Amino acid sequence: PGLTIGDTIPNLEVNTTHGKFKIHDLVGDGWAIIFSHPGDFTPVCTTELAKMAQYLEEFEKRGVKLLGLSCDDLQSHTEWIKDIEAFTGSGCKVRYPIVADPNREIIKQLNMVDPDEKDSNGNSLPSRALHIVGPDKKVKLSFLYPASTGRNMDEVLRAVESLLKAAKHKVATPCNWKPGDPVVISPGVSNEKAKEMFPHGFETVNLPSKKDYLRFTNV
Amino acid sequence: PGLTIGDTIPNLEVNTTHGKFKIHDLVGDGWAIIFSHPGDFTPVCTTELAKMAQYLEEFEKRGVKLLGLSCDDLQSHTEWIKDIEAFTGSGCKVRYPIVADPNREIIKQLNMVDPDEKDSNGNSLPSRALHIVGPDKKVKLSFLYPASTGRNMDEVLRAVESLLKAAKHKVATPCNWKPGDPVVISPGVSNEKAKEMFPHGFETVNLPSKKDYLRFTNV
Repeated sequence: PGLTIGDTIPNLEVNTTHGKFKIHDLVGDGWAIIFSHPGDFTPVCTTELAKMAQYLEEFEKRGVKLLGLSCDDLQSHTEWIKDIEAFTGSGCKVRYPIVADPNREIIKQLNMVDPDEKDSNGNSLPSRALHIVGPDKKVKLSFLYPASTGRNMDEVLRAVESLLKAAKHKVATPCNWKPGDPVVISPGVSNEKAKEMFPHGFETVNLPSKKDYLRFTNV
Repeated sequence: PGLTIGDTIPNLEVNTTHGKFKIHDLVGDGWAIIFSHPGDFTPVCTTELAKMAQYLEEFEKRGVKLLGLSCDDLQSHTEWIKDIEAFTGSGCKVRYPIVADPNREIIKQLNMVDPDEKDSNGNSLPSRALHIVGPDKKVKLSFLYPASTGRNMDEVLRAVESLLKAAKHKVATPCNWKPGDPVVISPGVSNEKAKEMFPHGFETVNLPSKKDYLRFTNV
């Protein structure tokens, strides 16, 4: 398990429900979310891939591609997608590609192996790993969940909003931030510079240390 | 960067604002959340550690200990805690320990290094890494966020609730699950067994594959 934040995602060729391509070509000049699931035709995974189908438009609007992945083969994915689409209950289609990795080559390289789970043949299974990859092809944020805990795609969307905000302005988002909430100005920006960059102003929190590092603004 | 889910957390001796102890002793027979922050007296970190101070009781109620960590020294932590407590604005105290790791020994072993961030001396800085450790001292779930994105402690609490639920019953929690929502029955549990285990019943979703793997119940 090597891949972590700051690392470049390996430019692997993947075999998917939308054909073969290289991961970097999918990312392109935008962003991508690569997420694994333990197995097709299993309960939590069905709810997760259905939610991602429903949220695809929200991610696309923000320039973010989705890529699913498990160790099942393409035929299994194709059959299972019918179940996922039925479960969404809204005529919503799975319009993002899903990688087939029956030889477990990709899950090893992308730090997506769950050492606690094996299939009936004793083969490795993926965890619920999710990497958000930036235009520089580097992993910006990773979630690693076990089989028993379905992810929270609202948190994934929140994280994307934060990453886009930070990439555009010299700001960061505070704990439990939601889009529309105030953001904080990065420590590297001096007060003089901040006045130029945020002409509508910012509010510095008065702290016992008398240091002026906690500055809120809106962007 | 090695530590990932399924791995045993190294039993390191840590120097903290509550004295020296070994990580496994903190976990004990319960659970622990070990979370790093890039630096004391910085904006996002202050909002995060304040939120953890406010949520401590919620975690304690569930048998979960908290342990903060950065590469600043103990004197810095002690001074900074005054700022954090002032920021909570509610008289709330930082009652959990914070590790001092000025030699960067611990962040390396716990996969908490952010390769994109350096301090003014060129030293490594921690990412916003957060590991949830179970009673078996293994990492159950990991969040790795960059410096610019403050974490969502509601998602951390949700994940803890899911892990506790799954540890107690043969269930898993679906995508975007919240406490009180229905859970799904694990694939390894047969329908016969499920009838015994969940005497109040369960609902099987009718899917195109005609496979009966998506079974919701309440526990």
